[in-house]
Amino acid sequence: MASLKIAVAGASGYAGGEVLRLLLAHPEVEIGALTAGSNAGSALGTHHPHLTPLAGRVLSDTTPEVLAGHDVVFLGLPHGASAVVAAELGDDVLVVDCGADFRLSDPADWTAFYGGEHAGTWPYGLPELPGQRDRLVGTRRIAAPGCFPTVSTLSILPAVAEGLVEPEVVVVAATGTSGAGKSLKPHLLGSEVMGQASVYGVGGVHRHTPEIEQNLRLAGAADARVSFTPVLAPMSRGILATVSAPLAAGADGDAVRAAYEKAYADEPFVHLLPEGQWPQTKAVLGSNCVHVQVAVDSRVSRVVAVGAIDNLTKGTAGTAIQSMNVALGLPETLGLPVVGVAP
Amino acid sequence: MASLKIAVAGASGYAGGEVLRLLLAHPEVEIGALTAGSNAGSALGTHHPHLTPLAGRVLSDTTPEVLAGHDVVFLGLPHGASAVVAAELGDDVLVVDCGADFRLSDPADWTAFYGGEHAGTWPYGLPELPGQRDRLVGTRRIAAPGCFPTVSTLSILPAVAEGLVEPEVVVVAATGTSGAGKSLKPHLLGSEVMGQASVYGVGGVHRHTPEIEQNLRLAGAADARVSFTPVLAPMSRGILATVSAPLAAGADGDAVRAAYEKAYADEPFVHLLPEGQWPQTKAVLGSNCVHVQVAVDSRVSRVVAVGAIDNLTKGTAGTAIQSMNVALGLPETLGLPVVGVAP
Amino acid sequence: MASLKIAVAGASGYAGGEVLRLLLAHPEVEIGALTAGSNAGSALGTHHPHLTPLAGRVLSDTTPEVLAGHDVVFLGLPHGASAVVAAELGDDVLVVDCGADFRLSDPADWTAFYGGEHAGTWPYGLPELPGQRDRLVGTRRIAAPGCFPTVSTLSILPAVAEGLVEPEVVVVAATGTSGAGKSLKPHLLGSEVMGQASVYGVGGVHRHTPEIEQNLRLAGAADARVSFTPVLAPMSRGILATVSAPLAAGADGDAVRAAYEKAYADEPFVHLLPEGQWPQTKAVLGSNCVHVQVAVDSRVSRVVAVGAIDNLTKGTAGTAIQSMNVALGLPETLGLPVVGVAP
Amino acid sequence: MASLKIAVAGASGYAGGEVLRLLLAHPEVEIGALTAGSNAGSALGTHHPHLTPLAGRVLSDTTPEVLAGHDVVFLGLPHGASAVVAAELGDDVLVVDCGADFRLSDPADWTAFYGGEHAGTWPYGLPELPGQRDRLVGTRRIAAPGCFPTVSTLSILPAVAEGLVEPEVVVVAATGTSGAGKSLKPHLLGSEVMGQASVYGVGGVHRHTPEIEQNLRLAGAADARVSFTPVLAPMSRGILATVSAPLAAGADGDAVRAAYEKAYADEPFVHLLPEGQWPQTKAVLGSNCVHVQVAVDSRVSRVVAVGAIDNLTKGTAGTAIQSMNVALGLPETLGLPVVGVAP
Repeated sequence: MASLKIAVAGASGYAGGEVLRLLLAHPEVEIGALTAGSNAGSALGTHHPHLTPLAGRVLSDTTPEVLAGHDVVFLGLPHGASAVVAAELGDDVLVVDCGADFRLSDPADWTAFYGGEHAGTWPYGLPELPGQRDRLVGTRRIAAPGCFPTVSTLSILPAVAEGLVEPEVVVVAATGTSGAGKSLKPHLLGSEVMGQASVYGVGGVHRHTPEIEQNLRLAGAADARVSFTPVLAPMSRGILATVSAPLAAGADGDAVRAAYEKAYADEPFVHLLPEGQWPQTKAVLGSNCVHVQVAVDSRVSRVVAVGAIDNLTKGTAGTAIQSMNVALGLPETLGLPVVGVAP
Repeated sequence: MASLKIAVAGASGYAGGEVLRLLLAHPEVEIGALTAGSNAGSALGTHHPHLTPLAGRVLSDTTPEVLAGHDVVFLGLPHGASAVVAAELGDDVLVVDCGADFRLSDPADWTAFYGGEHAGTWPYGLPELPGQRDRLVGTRRIAAPGCFPTVSTLSILPAVAEGLVEPEVVVVAATGTSGAGKSLKPHLLGSEVMGQASVYGVGGVHRHTPEIEQNLRLAGAADARVSFTPVLAPMSRGILATVSAPLAAGADGDAVRAAYEKAYADEPFVHLLPEGQWPQTKAVLGSNCVHVQVAVDSRVSRVVAVGAIDNLTKGTAGTAIQSMNVALGLPETLGLPVVGVAP
Repeated sequence: MASLKIAVAGASGYAGGEVLRLLLAHPEVEIGALTAGSNAGSALGTHHPHLTPLAGRVLSDTTPEVLAGHDVVFLGLPHGASAVVAAELGDDVLVVDCGADFRLSDPADWTAFYGGEHAGTWPYGLPELPGQRDRLVGTRRIAAPGCFPTVSTLSILPAVAEGLVEPEVVVVAATGTSGAGKSLKPHLLGSEVMGQASVYGVGGVHRHTPEIEQNLRLAGAADARVSFTPVLAPMSRGILATVSAPLAAGADGDAVRAAYEKAYADEPFVHLLPEGQWPQTKAVLGSNCVHVQVAVDSRVSRVVAVGAIDNLTKGTAGTAIQSMNVALGLPETLGLPVVGVAP
Repeated sequence: MASLKIAVAGASGYAGGEVLRLLLAHPEVEIGALTAGSNAGSALGTHHPHLTPLAGRVLSDTTPEVLAGHDVVFLGLPHGASAVVAAELGDDVLVVDCGADFRLSDPADWTAFYGGEHAGTWPYGLPELPGQRDRLVGTRRIAAPGCFPTVSTLSILPAVAEGLVEPEVVVVAATGTSGAGKSLKPHLLGSEVMGQASVYGVGGVHRHTPEIEQNLRLAGAADARVSFTPVLAPMSRGILATVSAPLAAGADGDAVRAAYEKAYADEPFVHLLPEGQWPQTKAVLGSNCVHVQVAVDSRVSRVVAVGAIDNLTKGTAGTAIQSMNVALGLPETLGLPVVGVAP
């Protein structure tokens, strides 16, 4: 097929940069317009010196004219900005939003956690969810999932889907700082974060909470409730999620293991580790993989699952491109790395 | 009073080094014998270049003769080695064990989690536990607590003691690597741990699990059950523990806050943060403080508490010296830092 | 003596925070007014959660009224702001400026490297410089040195002072990010600096260059020339300076070693390491020590010296308090830590 | 063409792991035998969990039988072990040694820096050296360069080759810890290296010194002398080298800039940054690129150049594969990433 011409709006941010890093290795892609907000007019290389082949490209303003004429447009914009931009793009253009605006299906959840009016709901870009792959085929609007929901959901999904846990799920997830984007806030300075672990959004207020619950409902747990605590760890990339829930009556370790093996046997990006080996974030750094392991703690009758992803790759840009591949009928894994950069 | 003459066995390790760092600032102390295992014969400064005033001191073998003639002996030895050394020291010598050998009161717990025969039980060096301060006065044997149990216990203690939670406790705690000591294992190499989060001891097998349960039983929860998952974070020092449990019937956020305020109002080393501010590990780095915060997540009816300590200070050597102060009738806070080194 | 009442202007910044951390352990000090710029009105604990005993103190505006009535005022202000504040303080008040405004003696150097008009020259707070200790006694104005100049100077000083090197000095110094303060700049974000080494101010343009040269001239090298390159390393604190210069004709390794031993035998904060042991920054983290080592590379006839400091302690706040002690006739080492926090 | 069948000896180490990471993305390669020393018998995934597609492969012993039947064999073995293994492989097999055994051409250099007898000299795998690309075509033995020599040489090469500097070169290079391999040494533990900068091999004793000099002699500086100091920085990957030398009489900044532009205009992996932008290691993390910048410090008449590489990629495995491509007549850039993984 001919190359897809792709624009990236918000190219100077971390999500935009990661989309570009991956697209540079995608065989069916031609990189078109690169736009930014206040960084318009500067060279991409001053923001992303790692994107050597594009270093000299100058960022344009994010306007309908600049974004016109592309087959695919990726949006890496602040919350609330995507709807306006998307409205100007034709229905035949595939728009992939890396932000949160179109992820939630319940307007009440939106208002409770984000405030303001709900912009709408787009097909959710997590092909590993039950039935979701089919829903993405042919779509021209994709809401890429949040990073925490992706890894939290995939860590516990098989147990929830098979009814092996009571859906009272506790998630504590350590994340690298790039998940917060390039926001210039004191607590994100290197001097603050290096050598330090801290928490934020504790007590059920983090915006990814309803998104995880929505995913678990899709998996069959109509009454899923999630206690979610994000931990800021001193690393740039990566999320390690510890996800536990009470073992359901009658379930046991063998049934849990079997459910995970069945669920992920054919998933190209989800890798259930051999028993006894636990996920670590650098194993998936820069890759689109999820590494998962699970155990049953019989002393306390809980299932404890752990998942690792790169928050910028499988957590944002990688899953966005994976969903693009599905939407456009390309091989789902095309151009996406499965090998992490370690040590 | 005259100075206490103090020996440190296992001085080349991290626990021993931290004991010495703190003792160098203690006004009632004279540092006597320093011993080691395979490092005997070398200068302390080659192992702990930060201990500048002691850099030229040569390490002796750990023998009864070398340890004789001291008022206090700190043990920073491998598991299983403390009993033999302690047996050679007189009953009038205060022996503070930084290892695990004498922490557990239930031999069955010991055998289940450590294997082999239980060496016995010494007074447990966590003065903040209900009634524990009194039990330490005058003792000549102290078992310093484990690092995870200290922070996990103190994070949830007021809620447990007041019956505000059901004692089905989920702990996920991110720790710096120094908690593993100087073990030469591949997964502890800098190349592996930097930029990485990983888990270990998942599924109820970590040895600190029964110690946390024992503490919660002491606090009144006869049937406490703990699901504990340690996360290895890319930092040298610090533990950040996220501890949650179901809110008890009839309890609410005000009751929880009040319980914490009451419990810690007079504790010199436990600092309940102002509402809305959450613990971070560098705030207590190198100090004997615990920073604690708590919230009630009403959506899922859980209490979520977070605590931060320095695993080597309040988590090991600081609490050991604090307990020494109590045992010997010195002011409890003598010589112990309350200010962390940040950023 | 009665306590000194001390104010800190710029208390929410890193320099101000470190001054306070050290003053909290100083036995002759009462902490008075704490002021800030845009952070006035907020609690100190929101900016420096590690300063637990002062966490509830509210920051005032930096005005003459607030700063009046103190024995000592420390200034941790942006470049150019100190002169105005100092002018309002009486000649009997000891003013210690942690900024650069009064360090350089040559107005031409000032204009070349900082631009604008030279504010003047205050006694330079590096007591280890030849003759400098005496010049500080009794003064009521002190310019605390820059962090790079302190470690660079003390690393090569004995060799320069004894004429054992040609004063064509090459300095490459790796620094932690806290040296840049709390500036909200993208390249200082944790996501950028973690896992990364970078350079800045290359090619003779860094403002600490003339200050190092000034120090070496004071040490007797009238024509000292310095090539200085700072490297940003992924750590919060610490500077490791590699300083080399051609061996002077007739000099050799023994003469160099002897010069260092003689120069630093009686310096309380400069520690010449045993031969074969090289400085590392964590050995001095949080302490006022400088660790130094030197070797002669006979293949290329160069002296190579290495020094390590904590940029916030001996590099800023520690040397400021050390100089305060000297100025006020207190014991020079009073209240200052010599033991680092490691590992 | 048909796939090349490739074996990797020493596959559980960092060099071997990086060769495999890159080969997995190389379109003309089939991965054959994987061997190890003491790790033989274990699964590759336990040592390199990031190599997901090969995780289940079991490591064999390093024997001639196992290595037979491959087109290319990469050696990632301890110093001194490569000669024996290579001797058993046929002359038609391309052997690429990632170790040091065959890099130096002068046996006296070998004996002085490595001790013992010189094993010989193989074509040196740095195609960017003058004339070197041609010397690699068709060879069946390649000595991959050391990581420090690669970045140090390429940083100053154009200035040396054009005679724009006096070849009295001072190199100070900050390196990530993976350059030391998986050696289980206390100073390489995460607890030690995180938050810390240190030096080693100071004073002309580091083994990469004669290799840099050899390269500069190849570039035309018959009497090159190098003062080299490696700095251990708290990161896993990356080297940032600061390389300076006195400006030659008659040379100036324009001439220097022109020399760099000319030298690197057609080099696929060497990227001279736009003026004013300086290298940073994460921009090349995981890529085979070298980022270079240069300035003239006219105050002290020195050329100061800075280069950044990933020590495992362009510093070891990437340059090895690049040289393999050249030797076998494949496109030089085949399968090699030019985009780093950042932030």
